[in-house]
Amino acid sequence: MTRTLYHLPLSPFCRKVRLHMAEKQLAASLVEEAVWEGRAEFFDLNPAGDVPVLVEENGHTYCGAYAITEYLEEAYKLPPLLGDSATQRAEVRRLVQWFDEKFYDEVSRPILFEKVYRRLMQCGGPDTDLIRLAKESLGYHVEYLSELLTSRTWLAGEHFSLADIAAASHLSALDFLGDISWNQAQGIKEWYALVKSRPSFRSLLLDKVRGFFPPSYYANPDF
Amino acid sequence: MTRTLYHLPLSPFCRKVRLHMAEKQLAASLVEEAVWEGRAEFFDLNPAGDVPVLVEENGHTYCGAYAITEYLEEAYKLPPLLGDSATQRAEVRRLVQWFDEKFYDEVSRPILFEKVYRRLMQCGGPDTDLIRLAKESLGYHVEYLSELLTSRTWLAGEHFSLADIAAASHLSALDFLGDISWNQAQGIKEWYALVKSRPSFRSLLLDKVRGFFPPSYYANPDF
Repeated sequence: MTRTLYHLPLSPFCRKVRLHMAEKQLAASLVEEAVWEGRAEFFDLNPAGDVPVLVEENGHTYCGAYAITEYLEEAYKLPPLLGDSATQRAEVRRLVQWFDEKFYDEVSRPILFEKVYRRLMQCGGPDTDLIRLAKESLGYHVEYLSELLTSRTWLAGEHFSLADIAAASHLSALDFLGDISWNQAQGIKEWYALVKSRPSFRSLLLDKVRGFFPPSYYANPDF
Repeated sequence: MTRTLYHLPLSPFCRKVRLHMAEKQLAASLVEEAVWEGRAEFFDLNPAGDVPVLVEENGHTYCGAYAITEYLEEAYKLPPLLGDSATQRAEVRRLVQWFDEKFYDEVSRPILFEKVYRRLMQCGGPDTDLIRLAKESLGYHVEYLSELLTSRTWLAGEHFSLADIAAASHLSALDFLGDISWNQAQGIKEWYALVKSRPSFRSLLLDKVRGFFPPSYYANPDF
C-alpha cells in the first residue's frame, strides 16, 4: 500500500512531517482530514482525533508529530536531522519544543485558530485582541531567532536540522496568512530564504486552502 | 559536579523526568525554581525560562522534557523505557504526547493554573468554571485509559514504559490536589496502585508544597 499522511495544509505539525519526509526523499499520498468533523474512521486510526497521522507502506500507523518524527529518524537514517552528539541532539530537540509548544501557544495557535479554524468550523468571527497579542509575541520570537543566527548558520548550529524544519513549519503557516512583516524580520529573512529554497519546501508552497489567498511573495524564494 | 534538576514539585513534566531518572537509578539534586519570578541566571540556563532543566555531571545542560527524556533514553540504556520495535516506540510516544499535550491542555494545565499557580503568582482567585470543565474532561480521559487497560498490563502494552510515567506524572499532580475521585476511576485504580508502589515513585510522594496539603491517601500505595 502507498505511504499516506493524513494532514491539514496549514497545520505546523503536518508541515513539519511533510518537510521531514521530503528531506529524506520519502514520498507519501496526502489526505486532507477535516479533524473538526470527527469522522469515526479517523478516530479508529488516531483516538486523539488529530493530524498528522502517518500510515506506512506496511500498514503500521504513527500518530502525532512527536512519534512520527522520532520514528522517521530511527527508520530512515539519512540524512540525519537530529545531529550526532548528545549535546547537538538536545539543542535540536530544545528548539523543536520551543516551536511546537512555546511558539505554538503564544503565536501560531491563536493566529491560526482565530483566522482560519474559526472560519472552517463556522464558530464566530476572529478575536482581534488575541491576534494582536500573538503578533506582539511573534516579535519577541523573531528577536530570539535573530540572536541565535548571529553566531550560527542554522538554528541549532552548523547543520540544517529538525529545529529549522520546526521553525519554518510554524513561520510558513503564518506567512501564508500574510502575518510576517519581513521588513521587521530582517534578522531571520536570509535564513528563511535558504530554507524556503530547499527542494523539500516546494510542495508546501503550492498548497491551496479554500477561501484563503497567500500574499504574492509567499511562494517566491526571493522575497 | 553533581547532576542537578531544576524543577517544580507539581509540574507534570518535572515529575516525568524525576520518575524517568529514578527508574534508571540516576541520582540528582533537586532545585526548586519559581519560574514566574524570571530569575536572570535561570534564563541563561534555559532561554525558555521554564522547567525542567537538567544539568549533567559534565556540565552539559538539557532543557525541556522532550530533550531530557530522549537524552536519558539514548545515554542510559537500562532499563529501556521506550520499547524495542518501531511500533512499540511509536505507541509509547503517542501516549506520551497524549498526556503532555492533550491531557495537559484539557485537564492538568487548567487545574494546576487555577488552583496552584494563581496562588503562587498572586494573580486572583480560581475560575471555577474552568476547573469544572477540566474535571469533566478528566472523566473522558479516565474512560479511555480504562479501555486501554482492559487488554493491556501497562498503558502501551506488556511493558512498563514512559507512557505510564507520563500518565502517572499528570495524574499524581492532580491527586496531590485531591482532584481524582478514585471511586469513579476504578478502571485505572489498580494500574495506578502498581505505578505508585514502584520505588521510583517514593520521592514524589514526600513532596511538600507550601500552603497545599494532599489528601491522606495521596502517599498511601493502598488507597
